Amino acid sequence: MSQKIQWGILGTGSIAHKFATGLSFLSDAELVSVGSRNTERANQFADGFDIPNRHPSYESLASDPNVDIIYVATPHNLHCENTQLCLESGKAVICEKPFAINADQATRMIESAQAEKLFLMEAMWTRYLPLMVELQAMLAENLIGEVRMLTADFGFRAGINPESRLFTPKLGGGALLDVGVYTVSLSSMIFGSPTQVVSLAHLGETGVDEQAGIVLGHAQNELAILHTAIRTNTPQEAIIMGTKGRIR
Amino acid sequence: MSQKIQWGILGTGSIAHKFATGLSFLSDAELVSVGSRNTERANQFADGFDIPNRHPSYESLASDPNVDIIYVATPHNLHCENTQLCLESGKAVICEKPFAINADQATRMIESAQAEKLFLMEAMWTRYLPLMVELQAMLAENLIGEVRMLTADFGFRAGINPESRLFTPKLGGGALLDVGVYTVSLSSMIFGSPTQVVSLAHLGETGVDEQAGIVLGHAQNELAILHTAIRTNTPQEAIIMGTKGRIR
Repeated sequence: MSQKIQWGILGTGSIAHKFATGLSFLSDAELVSVGSRNTERANQFADGFDIPNRHPSYESLASDPNVDIIYVATPHNLHCENTQLCLESGKAVICEKPFAINADQATRMIESAQAEKLFLMEAMWTRYLPLMVELQAMLAENLIGEVRMLTADFGFRAGINPESRLFTPKLGGGALLDVGVYTVSLSSMIFGSPTQVVSLAHLGETGVDEQAGIVLGHAQNELAILHTAIRTNTPQEAIIMGTKGRIR
Repeated sequence: MSQKIQWGILGTGSIAHKFATGLSFLSDAELVSVGSRNTERANQFADGFDIPNRHPSYESLASDPNVDIIYVATPHNLHCENTQLCLESGKAVICEKPFAINADQATRMIESAQAEKLFLMEAMWTRYLPLMVELQAMLAENLIGEVRMLTADFGFRAGINPESRLFTPKLGGGALLDVGVYTVSLSSMIFGSPTQVVSLAHLGETGVDEQAGIVLGHAQNELAILHTAIRTNTPQEAIIMGTKGRIR
C-alpha cells in the first residue's frame, strides 16, 4: 500500500481541473479516482490526469476502497448531499466553498464527520495563501496592537443570466455564497465566530442576493464590516484596524 | 437697515471661533451679536470679533431684534433646547452637527421651524466642500452609471477620558454623533433617506459607542456600508460604486 494519501475527486468541472492540477505538485498526494454522474465526463477527466479509477456515479466513487479522502467539487447546492455520501462511506472530505448553503446543512455535515470520526474541511484556499500565513504571524506578534475592526469586500459585476448558477436560488446563487464567503472567512480567521450578525441585502429579480452589507459583532466587541456583490464591482480590499495601526 | 444678513452666535467655544472667522469673509454677512451663559466669555468673544451686541444669556441673544439668524455652537446635548429657544424667538437657525442627539429631538426642531416658518439647517459643512459640489455634478452626469453601493468611514483613536464630552453619554458623546454623522450625511446626500437601518456598536466603559458598523438600505436597493470609531483609527475614505465605475 502506498504511503501517499489517496485522493478522489467528486465532480469534473473547472474547479476540479484546477484542484487535480494542484494535487499533481504534491509529493504526498496521489489522485487515484474520479467520479461523475456522466461516464464520458469521468473518463475524459481521468484520461487528462492519468487517474486509474473512474466511476460513473458519486456512490461508486464514495465506496472506492482505494480512496482515503474525497474532494467535493460540485455546485453549491449539492455540497451537503455529496459530502454526507462520502462521510457515510468512510471517506474524509475536503468540500469546495461555500461549505453549505445554510447553517442547517453545515451543522449536519459537521455532526456526520464527528460521528464517523473523519476529517472534514472547507476548501477555503485563501486561508493558506502565503500572505495570510504572514498576516496571522503579524497579528500574533501584536504588530498593530489589539485588533478592533475589519473591513473586507469581494464583489464583481456579472451580466444577469437567470439560467446561470450565480443567479439561480436553487443552485445556491447570489453574492454571499459565491464571493461573500471569502470576507466572512477572513473575519472568522481573525476574530473567530461572531456573537451578533446584522445584514441588509438586495435580492434581485431572480431572487438571489445581488449585493449585501454585513456587520459581524464579536465577543471582545470587535466589528467586521463586510460587503459583497455580483452586480457591482467593489474594490476587493481588506483593512484590519488595531489600536496601534492598520494592515491593508 | 443693513442689506446684510445679521448673524448671532450662541456659544463661544472653538467651533464658534471658526465660524465667526468664516463669516468675516462673507460679503453678505454681518456678525452683530453673541450670547454666552457667562458674561465674561461673551465679552471676550465679542471683543475678538468686533461684535457690537454681547448677551449674558442665550435668552437675551434669542430676543435681540438686530439678529436675523443664529448659529448654535453649543455641545451636542444642548442643540435641541437652544435651537428651540431661537426658533420660538423668531430667529432662523443654523445648528452645529450633530443636529440632535436622537430622532425625537430632530423631529421637534423641524416641526418648530415649520410652525414658525423659519429657516433651519444643520451646519454640515462637508456638504458644501468644492469636492462635494464636484461629486454631485459627476453623479448627476451619470459618470459611474447607476450608483449601487457606498462605503464610508470616519474614525480616530482618542485616549479615554471619562470626563470629556466625547466619552460622556449625557453630553451626546460617542462615535456616531461626533464623526459617524459625516458618513450618514454623505449617504443621505447620495441616496436620500434610508428605508432600512441595521447596526452593531461597541458601547465602551463610559456607555458611549466607541465603534459602530452601520448598513443603510434604500428604496432602489442601494446600500451604504458605514463605520465609525473614536478609539480606532480608520482610513477615512469613501468609495461610491456604480454600474460603470467607482469614485474613491
